[in-house]
Amino acid sequence: MEQPQQTAAPEAGKPPLRVGMVGYAFMGAAHSQGWRTVGRVFDLPRSPVLAAICGRDATAVRAAADRYGWAAAETDWHALIERDDIDLVDICTPGDSHAEIALAALAAGKHVLCEKPLANTVEEAETMTAAAQAAYVRGQLAMVGFNYRRVPATALARSMVAEGRLGALRHLRVTYLQDWLVDAEFPLTWRLRKELAGSGALGDLGAHIVDLAQYLAGEQLAGVSALTETFVRERPLPGGPTSGLSAAASTGTGQVTVDDAALFTGRFTSGALASFEATRYATGRKNALRIELNGEHGSLAFDLERLNELSYHDGTEPGAHAGFRRILVTEPDHPYLDAWWPPGHGLGYEHTFVHQARDLVHAIAEGRQPEPSFADGLQVQRVLAAVEESAEKNSVYTPIAV
Amino acid sequence: MEQPQQTAAPEAGKPPLRVGMVGYAFMGAAHSQGWRTVGRVFDLPRSPVLAAICGRDATAVRAAADRYGWAAAETDWHALIERDDIDLVDICTPGDSHAEIALAALAAGKHVLCEKPLANTVEEAETMTAAAQAAYVRGQLAMVGFNYRRVPATALARSMVAEGRLGALRHLRVTYLQDWLVDAEFPLTWRLRKELAGSGALGDLGAHIVDLAQYLAGEQLAGVSALTETFVRERPLPGGPTSGLSAAASTGTGQVTVDDAALFTGRFTSGALASFEATRYATGRKNALRIELNGEHGSLAFDLERLNELSYHDGTEPGAHAGFRRILVTEPDHPYLDAWWPPGHGLGYEHTFVHQARDLVHAIAEGRQPEPSFADGLQVQRVLAAVEESAEKNSVYTPIAV
Amino acid sequence: MEQPQQTAAPEAGKPPLRVGMVGYAFMGAAHSQGWRTVGRVFDLPRSPVLAAICGRDATAVRAAADRYGWAAAETDWHALIERDDIDLVDICTPGDSHAEIALAALAAGKHVLCEKPLANTVEEAETMTAAAQAAYVRGQLAMVGFNYRRVPATALARSMVAEGRLGALRHLRVTYLQDWLVDAEFPLTWRLRKELAGSGALGDLGAHIVDLAQYLAGEQLAGVSALTETFVRERPLPGGPTSGLSAAASTGTGQVTVDDAALFTGRFTSGALASFEATRYATGRKNALRIELNGEHGSLAFDLERLNELSYHDGTEPGAHAGFRRILVTEPDHPYLDAWWPPGHGLGYEHTFVHQARDLVHAIAEGRQPEPSFADGLQVQRVLAAVEESAEKNSVYTPIAV
Amino acid sequence: MEQPQQTAAPEAGKPPLRVGMVGYAFMGAAHSQGWRTVGRVFDLPRSPVLAAICGRDATAVRAAADRYGWAAAETDWHALIERDDIDLVDICTPGDSHAEIALAALAAGKHVLCEKPLANTVEEAETMTAAAQAAYVRGQLAMVGFNYRRVPATALARSMVAEGRLGALRHLRVTYLQDWLVDAEFPLTWRLRKELAGSGALGDLGAHIVDLAQYLAGEQLAGVSALTETFVRERPLPGGPTSGLSAAASTGTGQVTVDDAALFTGRFTSGALASFEATRYATGRKNALRIELNGEHGSLAFDLERLNELSYHDGTEPGAHAGFRRILVTEPDHPYLDAWWPPGHGLGYEHTFVHQARDLVHAIAEGRQPEPSFADGLQVQRVLAAVEESAEKNSVYTPIAV
Repeated sequence: MEQPQQTAAPEAGKPPLRVGMVGYAFMGAAHSQGWRTVGRVFDLPRSPVLAAICGRDATAVRAAADRYGWAAAETDWHALIERDDIDLVDICTPGDSHAEIALAALAAGKHVLCEKPLANTVEEAETMTAAAQAAYVRGQLAMVGFNYRRVPATALARSMVAEGRLGALRHLRVTYLQDWLVDAEFPLTWRLRKELAGSGALGDLGAHIVDLAQYLAGEQLAGVSALTETFVRERPLPGGPTSGLSAAASTGTGQVTVDDAALFTGRFTSGALASFEATRYATGRKNALRIELNGEHGSLAFDLERLNELSYHDGTEPGAHAGFRRILVTEPDHPYLDAWWPPGHGLGYEHTFVHQARDLVHAIAEGRQPEPSFADGLQVQRVLAAVEESAEKNSVYTPIAV
Repeated sequence: MEQPQQTAAPEAGKPPLRVGMVGYAFMGAAHSQGWRTVGRVFDLPRSPVLAAICGRDATAVRAAADRYGWAAAETDWHALIERDDIDLVDICTPGDSHAEIALAALAAGKHVLCEKPLANTVEEAETMTAAAQAAYVRGQLAMVGFNYRRVPATALARSMVAEGRLGALRHLRVTYLQDWLVDAEFPLTWRLRKELAGSGALGDLGAHIVDLAQYLAGEQLAGVSALTETFVRERPLPGGPTSGLSAAASTGTGQVTVDDAALFTGRFTSGALASFEATRYATGRKNALRIELNGEHGSLAFDLERLNELSYHDGTEPGAHAGFRRILVTEPDHPYLDAWWPPGHGLGYEHTFVHQARDLVHAIAEGRQPEPSFADGLQVQRVLAAVEESAEKNSVYTPIAV
Repeated sequence: MEQPQQTAAPEAGKPPLRVGMVGYAFMGAAHSQGWRTVGRVFDLPRSPVLAAICGRDATAVRAAADRYGWAAAETDWHALIERDDIDLVDICTPGDSHAEIALAALAAGKHVLCEKPLANTVEEAETMTAAAQAAYVRGQLAMVGFNYRRVPATALARSMVAEGRLGALRHLRVTYLQDWLVDAEFPLTWRLRKELAGSGALGDLGAHIVDLAQYLAGEQLAGVSALTETFVRERPLPGGPTSGLSAAASTGTGQVTVDDAALFTGRFTSGALASFEATRYATGRKNALRIELNGEHGSLAFDLERLNELSYHDGTEPGAHAGFRRILVTEPDHPYLDAWWPPGHGLGYEHTFVHQARDLVHAIAEGRQPEPSFADGLQVQRVLAAVEESAEKNSVYTPIAV
Repeated sequence: MEQPQQTAAPEAGKPPLRVGMVGYAFMGAAHSQGWRTVGRVFDLPRSPVLAAICGRDATAVRAAADRYGWAAAETDWHALIERDDIDLVDICTPGDSHAEIALAALAAGKHVLCEKPLANTVEEAETMTAAAQAAYVRGQLAMVGFNYRRVPATALARSMVAEGRLGALRHLRVTYLQDWLVDAEFPLTWRLRKELAGSGALGDLGAHIVDLAQYLAGEQLAGVSALTETFVRERPLPGGPTSGLSAAASTGTGQVTVDDAALFTGRFTSGALASFEATRYATGRKNALRIELNGEHGSLAFDLERLNELSYHDGTEPGAHAGFRRILVTEPDHPYLDAWWPPGHGLGYEHTFVHQARDLVHAIAEGRQPEPSFADGLQVQRVLAAVEESAEKNSVYTPIAV
């Protein structure tokens, strides 16, 4: 039986950008939404095509292909990479497989989008970065999926910092607070196992805030001093397939081998001081990625739980009328917003993936390095490694390797 | 040249629901996003197909079809309605054409989704409602697009009221504040002309808040006392095609023939008191649809500018620990949320159209009347008519016709 | 036994301003705090002396005098007024006795501070205003205690409106929400009896918001359309002495003869539209006096529950960086603040009475009419009367008498 | 000329508590307000008398005595301490003189209230604590002025933690952010000189947050890892007498010898992780003492800029209705509130000093150790010393001495 076509072809005349995606869990769903939507909203130089999706379970990946709108399904990522009808490999798997897939994809001549963290170790990230730089010379582009750079409010914040509105930075305070591990009976999913996830809150949440802080500041961390902790060291084994941040419990228990929380302070190269906290134990905080920057001329604050807003204090105004203002980042002259809805009609989490896809398509069409690059991802990895090293060495201040 | 297929066919075995949409401006874009996404996120009994889109300008509608993913384009809505390959007509035009199109679509045996307000007059709405009720007997379903019932937070609020958490209602205070007319040079778009829009802030914004207030309260307004005003009575004529809430100015001016703002108080059938305000002159308020309900046992408050949040006060708690709590409406057991992202990963404005599509598909598959029905839309129209009548009669309290 | 002196004499050389206060309940305590503190914080031309306090119960008034720091106690307000050692009579009784006491005090040559509402009827207020105007010629000054003009944030708001920062006003929305009557078992205190209180939420809360709105707008209401309601018409009789907003219940019930809530819309003389709501049934809202003003160039918003903050939107800024800003009204160049604490060290409710005392002392020392005058209080009374008239006449729009 | 008495004697029959205060700047004004007001609001077992105030400048201290209501003025603190008519010495001087004055006062048989930080060094604090403990045996009581324990919201938070509402603590995040040094031209006041102030943001702001965090947690810090920084190392010399946080500039510059900011992480004895930040460079943050506690059963959050509010998340509630609630801490059953105003009528900064006075008077009347004791102050000093040591030693984790 022939199926009705759900949606028409992309705009005639535009060259396609054929995407093959590995992974179909939480990130796979989010990236699918991004690829499927981006050409319907933005004017793009190339037309993204959801060519093939890959996962190990044949039934599940076929269902995911149908659900998310991918034309084909593969069960072996090697096969996906070998396909001639794919231009870009989008890697949405856990961190332990990023390096192998990305290296193979680059070797096969594909562009690559790799979910964060770039890798589970600095060594892997270095190898990937070298491969990406070599591939760049051949005209292939590689990007890391730090999607929170693509919230309109964070993009606006970056432009305001770049314009000099904050002046010399003095302070950054950055948290990423979640609470899904507060329940000691929550099972031992892959995110709690070092061999798969690399680290816990640090690699998952900490990677996001390190990247975002450095991006907004426009400079890098020079060194860190860190504490990490695993509050609940033994958890029930999961009873079945897990997805996203939820899972069913089972019999038996296993060791949690990653951190539950990581706190660190640091110095930026300019001398600004920063504090970071990543945790899955902040009861009541669901997705509180919060960042505040204080500069000599002004301050900015952002909270992912209110992602359509940016808080700005203009320190150059007369004190009597100054105050933190809530910019509703939904105006047509805000980043990405000219393609969306009228003022005040907010966007959501998933739009970051649409914007990420938009920016990547433009970069590929123009043959220009997209940001964040693998080198940016490697630098974040080095910060995370320094955090782990400091935590192991009694919190001693640990410079970031260059 | 054959185009690559952007997305695969919907899930095999599911009967399609073939949609034909009239209109391709702001609402057309939003509805397209809803229809295109809903089957990718929710498990549906039927698979929506974006079959055809209709608009008067052949070039523009063809571009819209390509952009938004509609298989075919029509320039005459009569032709759209006559197509055999369409099950549902989705009407996204200005209010002056709702009645004619909806009546024709119902006569042609189609299901109908009609944007709000249902019509520009009570008479039209009555005719449409009668037609919808007749069509219902024939198995056709009709619904009005009051999409703000489908924000997860408002759906949660409704369920909490229905559970009796507020007890007897005492107060509702409801506003819909925008500011895009503050600039006296903003041109005279169709929304400012009575012959096209029917009314101004009242029909556009007031219709939303009347419907939402009655929906949340679970009861209807019994009467109203109203003031309306047009602050700027003459505006520049628009210089070219206008879309959404923006337009370029031109030479010459014209009369604004609709209200800029409407305020009214009212009594609900239970005796609860309510105040309403709809305006396009609330400087700095972009989309402030705000509603608060106070009952003898508790209160609820919502603000569309922070649409992922619901504020709840449980009046039965000990005073020492009571307070308005901010429920982040992103948990898997919140309305619509089990299909989306993990807690704290917020949704946006456009998701209301996905949810609207979801609920309508289910209703059609089950042959059950979707809400809000045309009768609900008619009742809102009667409230708006009473508002206009009261405003003309020196604000005298005016009962709502039944 | 001679008592130790708690505090020293006021600053040498300054002429005293000897205050006699009638009433020692909630308002009496608040005014006492104002008089006792003002000279310790502000530089004043005259030194306030808490000379005598008056109340009917000899034991209670003696205890109040000791507690609040009044030198003498009287049980008959006529005796208080006849004392030679009193310059100013401060009237803190329920509204039914305001006229009689104020008229006698003015006749006796005293300055007068009278709590709001000025009177329970327009007629009384007219008589009082005429007497105050006659006394003014004799060098006596009279003022009404609308203390919310003396919150630093509202005083700042007034100055910003006066500077033209909002431009032509379009909208005011004003509420005063409390919830202490939600419990149907709360007893029938004097505030619920028309013969003592004059009216309910209208005179108590509505008087405040009418005055504040007109003060901030710098113009008067031209007419109103109103709804009032008494939700619970019978309540237990109070079991003993009541104070403030609390009371013990007793046996027996009585009729509530005042309004529980009053809603009204109105037009200001400039054409701005306004909505007002005063209620004691807004579950969870404790003291939510909220006012927002929208003008063509900007907006201001205030909430008494966060009284150290003023929200301001500057509509003349570029849209990309505009937003409502939270001004923390604690800077030395904010009204009244140079005498208090460093920035960010907030004030409280009672400080409004300190500021009221400060402004009145200055006005008396300079022989200049303090604001709000009795004429201002009369005008508020006329608005309240129009509200009651409109509510009785089916909400018909009712002009304010001039 | 005999001056009129501003206020009457305290209540007959109550023994007086005669206070002598050293210092009359910002803290002197605040303590005066506390002593003068406390007996007018609370029922006290003893009646505070403002007996004498002491400062080096005879004219200035005399003016302060008159202004703030102190009966006598002294220019030598030794003389003050020797007075027979003083029961309690209240020390409001900079930290470098705390030890000498407190030791002398204790030796003279006085009760002592000493402003925070207890001393500028651990050694001084140890000596003071030993002296206080010896004096306790003689019936004298000593207390440190960590006034932020006496905000009703923090006192409520403490009681909620003590009731077990949070369960095992996981995280504390604590900041005290001000911005008065952002301007590099702000002069070199005593607070920026190590010989007078001991340290900068650390001793001034950090002492407050260390005490408050330990108080709320009900446990102590076990160790810390710290970074400190002085952003602007040279500043103009002040041109004249400075007061509070403001000063006029002069010619010439001097070295800033204290920290501008201090960041540290730490572990509590239970294993909870904490982060602290004290700074005077957080542009736009005026007095942002913020603390959040996350426990396995719930969370609490407080912000001094909104001191009448406490935010509470009850993690034991069903997720669908859970959320951080804003408790308006103004109910009669909240700490200290039964003596103040009706619900929603907020308090201010200065009320913490009234409450501090209240609690101290009760402790003295009952002969029981008030909290925080000098031992508590010493422990805070040890934390601050560990912070400084860690900062000097490359941020290495440094245990708190016991």
